[in-house]
Amino acid sequence: MPSSLRVVPLGGLGEIGKNMMALEYGDDIVVIDCGVLFPEEDMPGVDLVIPDITYLLENAHRVRAILITHGHEDHTGALPYVLPRLNVPVYAPRLAHGLIRVKLLQHHLLEDSELEVVEPGYPIPLGSFEAEFFRVCHSIPDSMGILIRTPVGAVLHTGDFKIDHTPVDGMPTSLGSMAKLCEGGILLLLSDSTYAELPGYTLSERVVGEALHRVIAEAPGRVLVATFASLISRMQQVFNAAAASGRHVALVGRSMLDNVNMSIQMGYLSVADGLLVSLSEARRLEHDRVVLLTTGSQGEPTSALARIANQDHREISIIPGDTVVISATPIPGNELSVSRIIDNLFRQGARVLYDRVAFVHVHGHASAEELKLILNLTSPKYFVPVHGEHRHLLAHTALAKDVGIPGENTFVLEDGDVLEIGEDGGHVVDSVPAGHVFVERNTLWSSDSPVLRERWRLSRDGVMVVTMKVDEFTGLLADTPEIVCRGVAQPTDITGLAEKVGHAADVLLEKASIEPDVWAATKAKLDQLVGELVYKETGRRPMIVLVATEAP
Amino acid sequence: MPSSLRVVPLGGLGEIGKNMMALEYGDDIVVIDCGVLFPEEDMPGVDLVIPDITYLLENAHRVRAILITHGHEDHTGALPYVLPRLNVPVYAPRLAHGLIRVKLLQHHLLEDSELEVVEPGYPIPLGSFEAEFFRVCHSIPDSMGILIRTPVGAVLHTGDFKIDHTPVDGMPTSLGSMAKLCEGGILLLLSDSTYAELPGYTLSERVVGEALHRVIAEAPGRVLVATFASLISRMQQVFNAAAASGRHVALVGRSMLDNVNMSIQMGYLSVADGLLVSLSEARRLEHDRVVLLTTGSQGEPTSALARIANQDHREISIIPGDTVVISATPIPGNELSVSRIIDNLFRQGARVLYDRVAFVHVHGHASAEELKLILNLTSPKYFVPVHGEHRHLLAHTALAKDVGIPGENTFVLEDGDVLEIGEDGGHVVDSVPAGHVFVERNTLWSSDSPVLRERWRLSRDGVMVVTMKVDEFTGLLADTPEIVCRGVAQPTDITGLAEKVGHAADVLLEKASIEPDVWAATKAKLDQLVGELVYKETGRRPMIVLVATEAP
Repeated sequence: MPSSLRVVPLGGLGEIGKNMMALEYGDDIVVIDCGVLFPEEDMPGVDLVIPDITYLLENAHRVRAILITHGHEDHTGALPYVLPRLNVPVYAPRLAHGLIRVKLLQHHLLEDSELEVVEPGYPIPLGSFEAEFFRVCHSIPDSMGILIRTPVGAVLHTGDFKIDHTPVDGMPTSLGSMAKLCEGGILLLLSDSTYAELPGYTLSERVVGEALHRVIAEAPGRVLVATFASLISRMQQVFNAAAASGRHVALVGRSMLDNVNMSIQMGYLSVADGLLVSLSEARRLEHDRVVLLTTGSQGEPTSALARIANQDHREISIIPGDTVVISATPIPGNELSVSRIIDNLFRQGARVLYDRVAFVHVHGHASAEELKLILNLTSPKYFVPVHGEHRHLLAHTALAKDVGIPGENTFVLEDGDVLEIGEDGGHVVDSVPAGHVFVERNTLWSSDSPVLRERWRLSRDGVMVVTMKVDEFTGLLADTPEIVCRGVAQPTDITGLAEKVGHAADVLLEKASIEPDVWAATKAKLDQLVGELVYKETGRRPMIVLVATEAP
Repeated sequence: MPSSLRVVPLGGLGEIGKNMMALEYGDDIVVIDCGVLFPEEDMPGVDLVIPDITYLLENAHRVRAILITHGHEDHTGALPYVLPRLNVPVYAPRLAHGLIRVKLLQHHLLEDSELEVVEPGYPIPLGSFEAEFFRVCHSIPDSMGILIRTPVGAVLHTGDFKIDHTPVDGMPTSLGSMAKLCEGGILLLLSDSTYAELPGYTLSERVVGEALHRVIAEAPGRVLVATFASLISRMQQVFNAAAASGRHVALVGRSMLDNVNMSIQMGYLSVADGLLVSLSEARRLEHDRVVLLTTGSQGEPTSALARIANQDHREISIIPGDTVVISATPIPGNELSVSRIIDNLFRQGARVLYDRVAFVHVHGHASAEELKLILNLTSPKYFVPVHGEHRHLLAHTALAKDVGIPGENTFVLEDGDVLEIGEDGGHVVDSVPAGHVFVERNTLWSSDSPVLRERWRLSRDGVMVVTMKVDEFTGLLADTPEIVCRGVAQPTDITGLAEKVGHAADVLLEKASIEPDVWAATKAKLDQLVGELVYKETGRRPMIVLVATEAP
């Protein structure tokens, strides 16, 4: 029985400890978070990316629970894919719990799942572990960090957090509670590195509230505000600003409606009676009495804002004089989509305010000074920066060094690394499978499948389907091959190309055999021949699919 | 004969007046710039995007010249595709002239082209126009603006510019010359809107020079600096900083070598004897005596820096202790590539400095205060913001309004708009063809071709080639169809799918005819049937290519 604590980040696609983190001691494993990643540009057709949980499945009998820090998709979204194979209790703070319930219901998994609400301050026994949640501020209410007591010492995981002294929901990051939890000493700190590169402090949500108040009060016509459907504090600020200006608010977009309704029911949003109206009611009001709250702040093509920008939304068109506020910063990769939407909104006569020109968004993660505050408050023996790309983790270790944590006690891990902390210190001792898996509709497929490479090639060069009929008597072609192209920037002369292919094929077939037992080899040679000929004639390498029929 | 001046932006893919601008008076047309755009993410497989010059071809007999403001690709890159069809004289400043010569040589067009060097201050008669170039600062030496005298009044085009009082080449934007040119009054100003959104002034190149000096002097090991191969002033700063620290410089990447050689020959770069060494010589030096100057600052996958980051460069590997400076800001769309490169360099033990964390780049376009300076200096009657996306043009018009140019004399144009300025003021009177054309290897294809849509679909859902053999006697299938997939996230059971397709096809074939004259219609129905069945079984819509053989 090992007397060491093992820390294993899983499945973060390089942003370790973002989506899933495992802690092990003896016979017990607890998992922190269970999220998805959204596919990047070079993963076309993929809907979601989830962690590869091979390691957990191999140790399924030891997994005690999944602990969820907050309700964002990159911390909860993989549960519907993981729970059917690893049915363990899930502990989540109230809002996350509500969002997860909805998700499991949609996947018909709710009945078989064990889903518990956690309140901060109540210890949860989990084998040799004990978990206690504490409040932090983030861009979704009810975000938590977790203290996990282990026989080796206490582990403090910050969750995703910032230190906001004037948060909209009135519940600041609970530094007092954290200090109390740290009284016994912290063995290991796992802290959010997203903005470790940025000096100073992250601004408070209140700043955006003030900006929104001004914009909504002064707008000559309608105001459309686009924001994340989970950014509930931003919605509260929009509601407050609208009410202060005597405007009504209509919600646009399914997820916006669902989230607002749930948040009101659960008490996370407070809305004056009569403030919210339906879209059709809003259309009957004076323009300067209307705020529309919509999805699409990341330029998502199917979102309401994108469709409005493309003049493709069944119910809403831009009216010159509209003010559009894009209350978000584009996540890297989304900049082009958002730029195009902004341009198209301007073209239709809207005035558009976005982060580059107005103070309409602050993000939900700590900057360097806040991270140093946490490092000092917890004063951990060991430090593992999490929730960041490699350069963010490195920036965070520089902060740790600044506050005096020795370099040999700081570990920059990759997914699958096993960090062991015991009597003789901390060392990375092993490496376990920790890749990722693609989700596409109902199919899960491994990231080492050739499918992505094929799609990439198809997208650049298209496909050529070459149909050849081999005459079973002569062993040569019965006819000129037919070529069908898709996604190929047509060379001037497909017929000429087909004839060349036919001649070259006949030359090969004269020497090759079409006997059934060697036909596969012959076909492979034909395939290669066609590819080389196409490249020679066109300079491109479309994927070639050779259909050769009537082989005896 | 019209007595109006006509202004027609062409082919900017929404960034009007970036790549090509036409000015017309009576029988004369002059064209300003002739550039390419680089393809965006949703244009896979496309090499370049060039303006559609239909309008110019229809009026070829009136085109007097193409005037080039500076040597960047987005102002010169389309010349090899335009000149064969519109062989008119090209006037360019010296460095651009040199770069264009190389380009035309590569395309075997130099002999038939008329390519002239222009010096600032010498008027060039072009029909009813007269063009005079003047110096501006930009991120490539020898950048010019152009004053064009017309019978209606003078047009001033800024080219791409910033106002840098301490430029590396010692040639500031020539405000004195500009003032002199404006003495007769400026009818129309066309000014660079790229950074109209940004308040204040753009920093001088000198700031980067100082940062580079410090970084290169203090680096413990080798320094690799990645920058644009055309950013010659940056190269000069790297050479200066290397020399000051007693380091040698080796060049990495074909375009870096070519550009440096040309710039030295033409006198745009001054290099102390012995400063430059070959890569193999550099490898024999002490690490703290080496600077490597390389391409790849935009994350281009085939660039030297990308290959070094991927451990794929034949001659250079990262040595822990290396300092890498990415002396550029990612162009929108390139952020992910650059992030990955940074992370991979860090992983190999390099220390990486990039714009987010260090002062290692300034851009080459004017910010708001400089743009207002130009607006006041020129005091134009009419104003057309150019070289920006729609929101940039709008931001620039706000600046024009601030300095007192009436809104009705300011025009935000789209490609193809014809702005007419005459005795009765300025109006957009017409619209001409002004789209864009894709270049792929040696093929030019129209942007309304279905190829891009096909590629997009192939990249998301792949292709299924379904081969059916129809028995000419029974009119039904002779065998179960064969299905070959590429880029399809495999459904569990291809064989089962093939059988279902076969059955459904037989049902259709029983009722349909396979007579030759209606076979096409039957085949179309089969195609549709297969698509619907595949969607029903898999939830995906791969491109279906149906090969149906032995139809009588």
